Amino acid sequence: MGSVYGKNIRLSIFGQSHSEGIGVVIDGLPAGEEIDLEELQEFLNRRAPGQNSLTTQRKEADMPSFLGGILDGHTCGAPVAAVIYNHDQRSKDYEEIRRKPRPSHADLSAEIKYRGFQDVRGGGHFSGRLTAPICIAGGIIKQILKRKGIEICAHISSIGNIRDERFGMEIPKDLQEKAFPVIDDGKGILMKEEIETARKNGDSVGGTVECMVTGVPGGLGDPMFDGVENRISSIVFGIPAVKGIEFGNGFDASMLKGSENNDPFTVEDGRVVSITNNHGGILGGITDGMPIVFRTAFKPTPSISAEQRTVDLKNMTDTTLEIAGRHDPCIVLRAVPVVEAAAAIAIYDLLLD
Amino acid sequence: MGSVYGKNIRLSIFGQSHSEGIGVVIDGLPAGEEIDLEELQEFLNRRAPGQNSLTTQRKEADMPSFLGGILDGHTCGAPVAAVIYNHDQRSKDYEEIRRKPRPSHADLSAEIKYRGFQDVRGGGHFSGRLTAPICIAGGIIKQILKRKGIEICAHISSIGNIRDERFGMEIPKDLQEKAFPVIDDGKGILMKEEIETARKNGDSVGGTVECMVTGVPGGLGDPMFDGVENRISSIVFGIPAVKGIEFGNGFDASMLKGSENNDPFTVEDGRVVSITNNHGGILGGITDGMPIVFRTAFKPTPSISAEQRTVDLKNMTDTTLEIAGRHDPCIVLRAVPVVEAAAAIAIYDLLLD
Amino acid sequence: MGSVYGKNIRLSIFGQSHSEGIGVVIDGLPAGEEIDLEELQEFLNRRAPGQNSLTTQRKEADMPSFLGGILDGHTCGAPVAAVIYNHDQRSKDYEEIRRKPRPSHADLSAEIKYRGFQDVRGGGHFSGRLTAPICIAGGIIKQILKRKGIEICAHISSIGNIRDERFGMEIPKDLQEKAFPVIDDGKGILMKEEIETARKNGDSVGGTVECMVTGVPGGLGDPMFDGVENRISSIVFGIPAVKGIEFGNGFDASMLKGSENNDPFTVEDGRVVSITNNHGGILGGITDGMPIVFRTAFKPTPSISAEQRTVDLKNMTDTTLEIAGRHDPCIVLRAVPVVEAAAAIAIYDLLLD
Amino acid sequence: MGSVYGKNIRLSIFGQSHSEGIGVVIDGLPAGEEIDLEELQEFLNRRAPGQNSLTTQRKEADMPSFLGGILDGHTCGAPVAAVIYNHDQRSKDYEEIRRKPRPSHADLSAEIKYRGFQDVRGGGHFSGRLTAPICIAGGIIKQILKRKGIEICAHISSIGNIRDERFGMEIPKDLQEKAFPVIDDGKGILMKEEIETARKNGDSVGGTVECMVTGVPGGLGDPMFDGVENRISSIVFGIPAVKGIEFGNGFDASMLKGSENNDPFTVEDGRVVSITNNHGGILGGITDGMPIVFRTAFKPTPSISAEQRTVDLKNMTDTTLEIAGRHDPCIVLRAVPVVEAAAAIAIYDLLLD
Repeated sequence: MGSVYGKNIRLSIFGQSHSEGIGVVIDGLPAGEEIDLEELQEFLNRRAPGQNSLTTQRKEADMPSFLGGILDGHTCGAPVAAVIYNHDQRSKDYEEIRRKPRPSHADLSAEIKYRGFQDVRGGGHFSGRLTAPICIAGGIIKQILKRKGIEICAHISSIGNIRDERFGMEIPKDLQEKAFPVIDDGKGILMKEEIETARKNGDSVGGTVECMVTGVPGGLGDPMFDGVENRISSIVFGIPAVKGIEFGNGFDASMLKGSENNDPFTVEDGRVVSITNNHGGILGGITDGMPIVFRTAFKPTPSISAEQRTVDLKNMTDTTLEIAGRHDPCIVLRAVPVVEAAAAIAIYDLLLD
Repeated sequence: MGSVYGKNIRLSIFGQSHSEGIGVVIDGLPAGEEIDLEELQEFLNRRAPGQNSLTTQRKEADMPSFLGGILDGHTCGAPVAAVIYNHDQRSKDYEEIRRKPRPSHADLSAEIKYRGFQDVRGGGHFSGRLTAPICIAGGIIKQILKRKGIEICAHISSIGNIRDERFGMEIPKDLQEKAFPVIDDGKGILMKEEIETARKNGDSVGGTVECMVTGVPGGLGDPMFDGVENRISSIVFGIPAVKGIEFGNGFDASMLKGSENNDPFTVEDGRVVSITNNHGGILGGITDGMPIVFRTAFKPTPSISAEQRTVDLKNMTDTTLEIAGRHDPCIVLRAVPVVEAAAAIAIYDLLLD
Repeated sequence: MGSVYGKNIRLSIFGQSHSEGIGVVIDGLPAGEEIDLEELQEFLNRRAPGQNSLTTQRKEADMPSFLGGILDGHTCGAPVAAVIYNHDQRSKDYEEIRRKPRPSHADLSAEIKYRGFQDVRGGGHFSGRLTAPICIAGGIIKQILKRKGIEICAHISSIGNIRDERFGMEIPKDLQEKAFPVIDDGKGILMKEEIETARKNGDSVGGTVECMVTGVPGGLGDPMFDGVENRISSIVFGIPAVKGIEFGNGFDASMLKGSENNDPFTVEDGRVVSITNNHGGILGGITDGMPIVFRTAFKPTPSISAEQRTVDLKNMTDTTLEIAGRHDPCIVLRAVPVVEAAAAIAIYDLLLD
Repeated sequence: MGSVYGKNIRLSIFGQSHSEGIGVVIDGLPAGEEIDLEELQEFLNRRAPGQNSLTTQRKEADMPSFLGGILDGHTCGAPVAAVIYNHDQRSKDYEEIRRKPRPSHADLSAEIKYRGFQDVRGGGHFSGRLTAPICIAGGIIKQILKRKGIEICAHISSIGNIRDERFGMEIPKDLQEKAFPVIDDGKGILMKEEIETARKNGDSVGGTVECMVTGVPGGLGDPMFDGVENRISSIVFGIPAVKGIEFGNGFDASMLKGSENNDPFTVEDGRVVSITNNHGGILGGITDGMPIVFRTAFKPTPSISAEQRTVDLKNMTDTTLEIAGRHDPCIVLRAVPVVEAAAAIAIYDLLLD
């Protein structure tokens, strides 16, 4: 079991990069929630490739078909099932991938686990393409949360060593509309140059995504293993290439004194708030009404053009390989809506506790 | 629900800092596993306070009594239930804490969630003392894993801005025996000074713990939401004060090029290994046989002596508070065995998949 | 959440009687299991309607399309996702059903739960048609179990007051091939007459299905809430119209003395067996190697031709209704493979513990 | 894993008949629920042995000590942990039981599963004594449900072939106060004679318990695998000796016509009710506001005085055994509060969905 998430809602994601389709079943959505399919499609387009020169050139259409669960534009209580049909079901021989695991891809670990039966075409079930079903679920849930006053917004917080500003207490007004979502557009230009350089060199570059959730009521989450951090991290590590997550001040907090990191409380409009938000809206695993803030680290895409050392699994000898084709030099831009989707799913699952 | 963890084994942790006892029920351990209670006690002692001047002075005895599940020194298949009785059940009036939430403690979020009914004495169920039951479970499981050739070792990887070396491919021989577990003892001296300075100032300081698991077979974990990272992070965020986790190169990977971060494979003694371990033993959520490496960020203890701003929940006005008593200036030292315990539990739960 | 089952494998069933499709995602099947699609289709045909005059005349094609999870005739480790497209998506006005709940259907309880948003067309997600995806999953798993020497066979054990013989220690050789699966064909003739009489009267009749699982290893299941009975009943009550389940002697055991019901042990071919099997292969929730035997009670189909009393939910007044169309006078025949499928899924999930 | 139940609350039951203690951790109870410990004790006394000549003579004290979770008579949000210490920890040699499995006990299946490491003293974790922790949890939850207008009541519906009346639409007023809870006291006298006869003969006798839950709101439960029947049966099969469960008309429904079994609806006091309750309050897995009614079958206690055939596991030869001591001739009387407790837990877990 692996591609199943949630306690109150239950996502079950299926498909491989080149199987007949990829999709998701979402069990547990309440009946009567309106789904704006156009708004959903716009959200999915943010993740789709081929938007601009910075992402992979392969053109996929992320158009979901609904097999059940939606009636007259509303959830009907039955599980919502959506599929994106794969038009590109290449039957091309992938024997080389099966034989020579690509460094830092899941090829070797999958080979060990599935003993040669795994679908290696285009990365199979490990493909970044499988983030599309996460976005279908997350996009639907974002609409539900918005009606409850909960907004979720992510931005590129760094590419390589170039860092955007961090979130303050509110979501910057125009951020969600930006094609390249950064708070400081000047930094955005530098980031694009960084990606372009990587692309030209046949290399790739990593980055981080920061996500903020506003309007969250206090009291969500439980102590210990069912805290908000546990449940968000549980889904976020389901996004390919994520290698770290931190909440509030995160790793920076480990370098601070208590007197620097503590967030004093004050009364504002008859409501207790913290003056700073180093805790990222979560204390003891439970929300206190301040915005939830977290950052995730994405490693650089392991697909690069340079010749790399690997092994030949058939002969058990050292060898080299070159990964053909054009590669996505940076997945961080396309990961922004995926992080939003994951956060939406986790928060909604918590709300239903 | 909150203090329950696991898919194949199921931990249920109970108790508050000043209730009759704290403890754990571990359901799902196979019968016939030998438990060395002396070795377990030594492990628990590493977490217990009062070991030296760097930790809190309150002297607790972390001596578990077993209510069931162990017979003639072996697990008997029934749930293992252990309790540490609390000798210090202060009934002292804690009304001030209830009224004035301490900054960056769980006081406010607990007040919102439990509407005044929560046990605030000594932090209640949110107390760091609740990491003792995690260590009981983890200590038992470490013994089981060791017999399977799986070793788990953690060290203090930083205190404030002072950083220890990172793990290489093997666990340094003497690390587990050190009273102050760092790889570079010179850095250890500086760290102790940092803690001592915080203590003198009535302040606290954060840090990080790095953990390595060796001997892990390949093929553990599942793609997407049931990956090794998801399941380790799910339990690690159950440790109070943890604000971040990263695997392998983690956040550093986000600053690298693919050509720098990719780990080439080679054949060594007839087995495929990676030459470097930037991926921390996990690719696509699944182990590949390399050591699992992760780091967790601990925020500085929020209990400090300085006067701090907070609110009076009764009058809904701003006020200040001073937290009386001696505080633990740094919980990172005591957190080292807790991180090991959490990792042991997660890895064993994965092994039983 | 509701249409999700399993601990080690995870079924997620979707679709409504007249939505675009119905189907199932099966997460957690190991890679490398061969799937014989022809054998699967034959199994599905046993459930499909229109086989003979005793079942409903509507002709559905239960032909699954696989969207993922199967490659070159084997499971590939990714979730197996199958869909049966609904060709009959009647958009006919179902306002009367929404307004006048049919007695003993799920119309009223669904109306309360989903507040008018439920899909009432053809029973929606509550339709017996949703047992087809259970059969897809169960049919695949039956093939896996067979290779492990585990056989699952069910028969009609009663229709109305006419009772077939009960299972002994072995599955009767030709039972699986019979179009009307009973042990005593003479009783089968009487049963068919009973069904035919109900059909002519526009009425329906209930019955029971008995299921036996042979070749089950001892030691499956856990005490208390994770016993074999708990896990089988958990899935069996997911079949529409099931109102009871009993294991071994079941309710009859409640009328016996201990001296009558106890099963003495003996040694046979170097293996401990019980001379009788009143316990149905399960003691303390755990298998002991004897065949698992259980029976399920199906209520008569609530769709009958006679005028029935009900209420008008709009006006909140008493009224009557007649259910138009031809009804299935007895669902027990078609339920036989569904019970087998459910048992297969539960047993396999237990085997993976 | 086995002794863990629940989705929203999570019970974890521990202990063996002769370990240091038996008990339960209940995770997920909301804070602020008042617990009347005296009322709880009275409820526990209904299950305790030695009440009268009809039950086992061994005198146990079912007095729970609370280790956490309750403060000033209210739940505090932390897990409620309760233990009943075992004063009778006989270390007597139980080698004979380990060697000669008692017919229809869990001895053989436990031996297969736990390979000789199981605690056989007094039945270990399989002992009926483990129903006491279920009653602690259920007794607490019954109090919570009562405040919500939900009442749960069970009675002995049969002993051997003697049958009490079935529940109608309401709980008979004085039933809960009866020492021998039957609706028809005349039948109660016959039942007691039946038990007494079994006792004199060194034999035992089975029976059934019927349970009704009133005041349940409509809309509880989900379709398919998360229906009310699935979740109730999931916990009820955790009670030792239960071999069957049926809802509403249950197995009797399988002998009826649709025209006989269907429950017509009518409007009563502005609310839709069914005129009869053959469906037992559940349609399509979901409650419709009518009382939930179910019956469970208990096999006769397998401990009887007569010499019985069994095997010697050491020599793998046939042999006989006599079970020494006085045996409980009928567990059904003591099972009545256990069934109520199990129903309370399941219903409350559903309510928290």
